Amino acid sequence: MTITASRTWADLCAHRQEMEKTHLRDLFAGDPERAGSLSLSFDDILYDFSKQRLTRETLGRLVKLAGEAFLPEWIERMFAGDRINVSEGRSVLHVALRRFSAPFPNGQFDVMADVLATRKRMAEFAELLRAGKCHGHHGMAIRDVVNIGIGGSDLGPKMMNQALRAFAHPTLRVHYVSNLDGAQLAPLLQTLDPRTTLFIVVSKTFTTQETMVNAETARNWLKSNLGDEVNLANHFAAVSSRPERAAAFGVSRDRVFPIWDWVGGRYSLWSAVGLALMIAIGPHAFDEMLRGAERMDEHFRTAPFAQNLPVIMGLIGIWNTNFLGATTNAVLPYNESLKYLPSFLQQLEMESNGKSVSIAGDPVDCATCPIVWGELGNNGQHAFFQLLHQGGRIVPCDFIASVRSDYPLPGHQEALLSNCFAQSSALAFGKTESEVRESMEKESVAPEEVADLLPHRVFAGNQPSSTLLLKTLAPGTLGSLVALYEHKVFVQGAVWGINSFDQWGVELGKAVASRILPAFDDPALASAFDGSTQALLAYCRK
Amino acid sequence: MTITASRTWADLCAHRQEMEKTHLRDLFAGDPERAGSLSLSFDDILYDFSKQRLTRETLGRLVKLAGEAFLPEWIERMFAGDRINVSEGRSVLHVALRRFSAPFPNGQFDVMADVLATRKRMAEFAELLRAGKCHGHHGMAIRDVVNIGIGGSDLGPKMMNQALRAFAHPTLRVHYVSNLDGAQLAPLLQTLDPRTTLFIVVSKTFTTQETMVNAETARNWLKSNLGDEVNLANHFAAVSSRPERAAAFGVSRDRVFPIWDWVGGRYSLWSAVGLALMIAIGPHAFDEMLRGAERMDEHFRTAPFAQNLPVIMGLIGIWNTNFLGATTNAVLPYNESLKYLPSFLQQLEMESNGKSVSIAGDPVDCATCPIVWGELGNNGQHAFFQLLHQGGRIVPCDFIASVRSDYPLPGHQEALLSNCFAQSSALAFGKTESEVRESMEKESVAPEEVADLLPHRVFAGNQPSSTLLLKTLAPGTLGSLVALYEHKVFVQGAVWGINSFDQWGVELGKAVASRILPAFDDPALASAFDGSTQALLAYCRK
Repeated sequence: MTITASRTWADLCAHRQEMEKTHLRDLFAGDPERAGSLSLSFDDILYDFSKQRLTRETLGRLVKLAGEAFLPEWIERMFAGDRINVSEGRSVLHVALRRFSAPFPNGQFDVMADVLATRKRMAEFAELLRAGKCHGHHGMAIRDVVNIGIGGSDLGPKMMNQALRAFAHPTLRVHYVSNLDGAQLAPLLQTLDPRTTLFIVVSKTFTTQETMVNAETARNWLKSNLGDEVNLANHFAAVSSRPERAAAFGVSRDRVFPIWDWVGGRYSLWSAVGLALMIAIGPHAFDEMLRGAERMDEHFRTAPFAQNLPVIMGLIGIWNTNFLGATTNAVLPYNESLKYLPSFLQQLEMESNGKSVSIAGDPVDCATCPIVWGELGNNGQHAFFQLLHQGGRIVPCDFIASVRSDYPLPGHQEALLSNCFAQSSALAFGKTESEVRESMEKESVAPEEVADLLPHRVFAGNQPSSTLLLKTLAPGTLGSLVALYEHKVFVQGAVWGINSFDQWGVELGKAVASRILPAFDDPALASAFDGSTQALLAYCRK
Repeated sequence: MTITASRTWADLCAHRQEMEKTHLRDLFAGDPERAGSLSLSFDDILYDFSKQRLTRETLGRLVKLAGEAFLPEWIERMFAGDRINVSEGRSVLHVALRRFSAPFPNGQFDVMADVLATRKRMAEFAELLRAGKCHGHHGMAIRDVVNIGIGGSDLGPKMMNQALRAFAHPTLRVHYVSNLDGAQLAPLLQTLDPRTTLFIVVSKTFTTQETMVNAETARNWLKSNLGDEVNLANHFAAVSSRPERAAAFGVSRDRVFPIWDWVGGRYSLWSAVGLALMIAIGPHAFDEMLRGAERMDEHFRTAPFAQNLPVIMGLIGIWNTNFLGATTNAVLPYNESLKYLPSFLQQLEMESNGKSVSIAGDPVDCATCPIVWGELGNNGQHAFFQLLHQGGRIVPCDFIASVRSDYPLPGHQEALLSNCFAQSSALAFGKTESEVRESMEKESVAPEEVADLLPHRVFAGNQPSSTLLLKTLAPGTLGSLVALYEHKVFVQGAVWGINSFDQWGVELGKAVASRILPAFDDPALASAFDGSTQALLAYCRK
């Protein structure tokens, strides 16, 4: 039986009909305890979901739904190392990457020896670099590290590096290059000294087109600038599950760090894929980040669902998507250091759950992952918030802020937070016609103008949001935050009955691209393609 | 009568029912001329919309709809300088900003004297800076320019500056600061020399909170670093319609550049708001950009609707949103230099048309602006394209690429373009069950595995997209591109019957924020707020 055929799903549909008539204004007015009872805290994170369009009753039903979708069993299976990524026949063990002791998941199948040994090698290499003892050309110390990777081999470490830049090494610079477009790598190379630059090539297969083209350009740049005496091994490290390919490229074996088939790219920040991040912030802060994630793992595995942050967060998304009809989810960080978080979550959620076939291969008969999008919230206020307030669309929002600034300046932080809190409040409660009329009368607007302007100045409100308030952007807190979202995705995948850990949808485009590429050199090949592709190729040749 | 009650709207609804049964595969198979007949070119831009889910018949009906929505009249009224921004009683004359001769809009109401004089002053100031003849402290040449502005005073110039960075001055550095969060300005200040830094404060009212807080921090930084002998006038310029306020802040009158009430922030890139951009790329390239926009204006004003790029682009959006039910629109640039384009278009579209009340004050009875979102396309392939291919949601996409790279490197550009063309092709045509079966048999996948994997490897296709292919990222071409999107927004506003030029929806949040701010210092004030705001404030005090 699919989950949508369950009694609880039907109950939720009925309940939705009541809730659709209820405004957040009524919910707050009717329950003075609402804010306290619809929020959870975990270490240095407050998760306030009282401005979601639901009640404790709603949550009770959603928790029941999670049980009927076998979420407890799925959680157990993941932590037990079962091959729950069935379409690829793999375990899903990113949680192992933030553990500190063996065995895990169990004595028979223990991945921790590899994990701990790799983490130790990473730390040694990172410390060497951070101490200026990693040598480039002619014994000069490496000063710039360039991470070459794309997707999960870029977004996670880059996002976290920006989030923790206050912890970064004072002089060592870390850069991230992902795009096949030369317009990313070429201008960066202009600012680098080849003698003191190290490239980390990150690709599970060591065949990712974008990454290999960028790596080759880097190698050519080193050769053409440093001449025959260049020792390429001094300028490269690699993260890959195919060390022999990395070695063939010219990476020294002792600088190839492994990654395993039980870690998906978008869950790999915690592995050697995070090497550039560890170099930036140091092994100690990296470990703190892991410990924060580990605490969230333990919470997810053990806390009752009604107090379980990832479970509640996931179920709220189910409510918004499958019952209130939201098609998107906005992520709005009120912290410049979290500027890459929306892109990171976009991959985490949309690549994991942007599917419409169940784990068993049947069509899913309900909506799945919404479009995840967003920008820095304060900037968004002056850009797209108009639509959130008056566009007539339901757009659930995640507001994310830190109480204390990582770069404090007088007069900034409290003003910033007041904007964050004000926006979620205004979105929830709006401004009624009579309130607008009253305030225009106070402003002494002429009566005929009041009538004209009134409809434009009314705010419907009832726009749902959650606020995640962190005490600080500490490594441990950020580790918990990212693990929270990872497990939220897992919860939703379980309810929708999909495999959140494969990504077959990325294959076709790659295959078509490899067929189109030769047609740039040989126009005769173009005739094999559809008319539009032919026309685009012809325009390129003009 | 509202547009949704028109006969043409009803015809389009009926037509939609046919089209919903038709796959892009069928449309291409049935019409070998499709690619040629469903594309337009304009100067160095090819606009291919053949992979949208429509036919020439659809377009014919949409063009008719535009007529019934009085689009020709609205265009005429905008160019005539009528006060079509009725809720604010203002003309809408950003098109004047890219003209080179007076009078405009007409002899009685001519804005061109101001426009041309301001452009000349901007050019003189920009040339001074570019020649190293603008002096900071003790006669030292200014080397860093920091634009302080937010929303329209940030996104436009920042986006275009990145797009045209290949044209930028070799040594003068231009930075953009918008966020109230100190974590944007503070780390930047650490890299700057106060003696050689100039801040441009951009705010129409000169009261924008974010901008004024950042400007004050900049002023304090100059004072505390340069001491009593600092001449603040050497370190500031301003763009504002309230010059007296800029002067009171400490900006020299001859460095205050005007902006007018007939330009909305999100349409102001072409005005003095673009000063930092002009400083970066020089007055000549800036003029070329204006000329490109002016050519698009002329095209929009005069071309028959069936050959009119902004009209067709706008109507395709109407088709996708109001008839095919799309709720979002993805913008996917295949050029690193266009990385801020999605954010810019987010503001342009969502702040202009994210409304649900008509220009006459009535509720709009159809969907209006979709959520505009996106990322660099090549990066997106490794992040969220999974959902575009297999998520089961309709997501119209704008693919944007340039034939020639602005930073060419061997092996990059053709591979990049082949990905761009391949993705739109794969999204349109997908891969059928029998095609998947065939390719798995070729790969010698075991029969039982074929059955298991088959449903996961099928691509439904039929995902609509357009491709905008530019010959190069030249200033004129980019000017045309941005004007194209501006007018697209105008077309859609006309069809939906809304005022695309006000933004009442940004007011409430600002008002609430100003009430919350004092509660940080005086906890007793918190009791005036809703329970959630109170709880958030209490958490901050812990």
